[in-house]
Amino acid sequence: MLKPLGDRVILDEPQEEEQTVGGIVLASNAQDKPSTAKVVAVGDGRVLDNGEKVTPSVKVGDNVLFDKYAGTEVKYDGKSYLVLHEKDLVAVID
Amino acid sequence: MLKPLGDRVILDEPQEEEQTVGGIVLASNAQDKPSTAKVVAVGDGRVLDNGEKVTPSVKVGDNVLFDKYAGTEVKYDGKSYLVLHEKDLVAVID
Amino acid sequence: MLKPLGDRVILDEPQEEEQTVGGIVLASNAQDKPSTAKVVAVGDGRVLDNGEKVTPSVKVGDNVLFDKYAGTEVKYDGKSYLVLHEKDLVAVID
Amino acid sequence: MLKPLGDRVILDEPQEEEQTVGGIVLASNAQDKPSTAKVVAVGDGRVLDNGEKVTPSVKVGDNVLFDKYAGTEVKYDGKSYLVLHEKDLVAVID
Amino acid sequence: MLKPLGDRVILDEPQEEEQTVGGIVLASNAQDKPSTAKVVAVGDGRVLDNGEKVTPSVKVGDNVLFDKYAGTEVKYDGKSYLVLHEKDLVAVID
Amino acid sequence: MLKPLGDRVILDEPQEEEQTVGGIVLASNAQDKPSTAKVVAVGDGRVLDNGEKVTPSVKVGDNVLFDKYAGTEVKYDGKSYLVLHEKDLVAVID
Amino acid sequence: MLKPLGDRVILDEPQEEEQTVGGIVLASNAQDKPSTAKVVAVGDGRVLDNGEKVTPSVKVGDNVLFDKYAGTEVKYDGKSYLVLHEKDLVAVID
Repeated sequence: MLKPLGDRVILDEPQEEEQTVGGIVLASNAQDKPSTAKVVAVGDGRVLDNGEKVTPSVKVGDNVLFDKYAGTEVKYDGKSYLVLHEKDLVAVID
Repeated sequence: MLKPLGDRVILDEPQEEEQTVGGIVLASNAQDKPSTAKVVAVGDGRVLDNGEKVTPSVKVGDNVLFDKYAGTEVKYDGKSYLVLHEKDLVAVID
Repeated sequence: MLKPLGDRVILDEPQEEEQTVGGIVLASNAQDKPSTAKVVAVGDGRVLDNGEKVTPSVKVGDNVLFDKYAGTEVKYDGKSYLVLHEKDLVAVID
Repeated sequence: MLKPLGDRVILDEPQEEEQTVGGIVLASNAQDKPSTAKVVAVGDGRVLDNGEKVTPSVKVGDNVLFDKYAGTEVKYDGKSYLVLHEKDLVAVID
Repeated sequence: MLKPLGDRVILDEPQEEEQTVGGIVLASNAQDKPSTAKVVAVGDGRVLDNGEKVTPSVKVGDNVLFDKYAGTEVKYDGKSYLVLHEKDLVAVID
Repeated sequence: MLKPLGDRVILDEPQEEEQTVGGIVLASNAQDKPSTAKVVAVGDGRVLDNGEKVTPSVKVGDNVLFDKYAGTEVKYDGKSYLVLHEKDLVAVID
Repeated sequence: MLKPLGDRVILDEPQEEEQTVGGIVLASNAQDKPSTAKVVAVGDGRVLDNGEKVTPSVKVGDNVLFDKYAGTEVKYDGKSYLVLHEKDLVAVID
């Protein structure tokens, strides 16, 4: 199991959602859009200057929207994951 | 539903307001002008160095003026939204 | 009405004051000079790291000198305004 | 009257002191030298992160040495002034 | 023995894991992947602005995933080690 | 007399020490070496974020080693001085 | 004697350790490796934002590993020294 450090969050490698109009894949503007994925592990949170930890505001199982240019791809046990800092998560999808 | 994280705010994708003089669309200087949109969701606010959260100063339903080069476009449930950090909101329109 | 957010201040779009010597408009050095305008709206001030707000030191009606390369032009209700961060105001003219 | 904001200080526009050797004006190295001027107005000082203001350490009438590439020239009431942040003042001349 | 300073952590020089598909070594995308290694020494942690030390959240013997572009290679006593700041460790592998 | 402001220190303009080997002046590497000079005036020290001043750790008369690319040359009363921030002083020579 | 200021540490000019294999000097990769040297003087430590000093974690006589691109070479009393900030020391060699 991977236990992310600090304010890091591990996400399931997201499937890139293709945008199609009448069956035609649209590539334009795709670069500016964040992607979505499921949270699979959460770190203990970042340490403030007064020594306290800030508990991350997402939890395992949350579906999140994230800045797709942030993060690093990680391969572990045959699967691909994405590791991001919590600040690069944009929104939780309820 | 999208629940923005941190100090993020979600806005309805704004309609770009064309400037016309006698029917002629004016493109010049358009780059420097912020746009307006309605707030549809607000995060819990940023965490200060002493661990407190700063409640954002806008609320759902506010019409806001924002720096149009800030933020990321997000597609969710067939609609376009704009996600910005609160600091990129310029003013509330009363 | 526009209610600026954070430490922002809204100014009446300033008239550029021409410099003339014997009727000849002087353009040189104009780039380095701040401009003057009247304050029409003031935000609640910036939030310090300890959570307190710093009340801006200008008020509605003040004539201020500002760094003319700071700020963003805003059009609202047919009029042009300038939105600046308080730190870009240089001096109050008594 | 101009009342500088924050940690700004207003100086009389300085006369550039020519360096001459036997009547020959020396231009070399002039770029690295700070200039001197008289303080004509002082702001309330910068606001610390704990909310306190730091009273500037110069007062009206002081002759100061300043970094001549800092500051902005301001014209007011037919006279030229220089507005600088206090940190760009180098020394007081007793 | 090497005793890392501050928030540094010393890792066993990692073996680069080749990715092969049917015996063919895959080089593509290798640049974006962090590597794994065993922690062999841990510093006392970084000093916060209030003077306290933050004990690092990894310990000797942990297997960690790290950003492979961070850190410096060190040779000591005939062996290669990698010295990283704790913040460049991505996750602990349980 | 020059009274430096903030964390500034005024030094006697240093004489550049030539390096000679058998009478040949060596110019190589000269760029990386700090110089030495005598402290002639010391400011009150920098203001911390909690409002306190940090008394500079050098005093008038100290011989100091300093980073020779830091600081500004100042001419005052026919003499050349060097103004540096305290952090650009490298060591005191006992 | 040289007394380093702030968080500076003075090291004996290190001898570059050549890497040889069967008598052949290896130059490759040499750029990424930190060097080792003995600590000859230690400053009082850096001043935190709350005014306290952080005592450096190395002492005179320690053998240290340091980032060889940090620091400045200093000549004093016919000998070469290296002055570094404590943060550029990588590890103590026990």
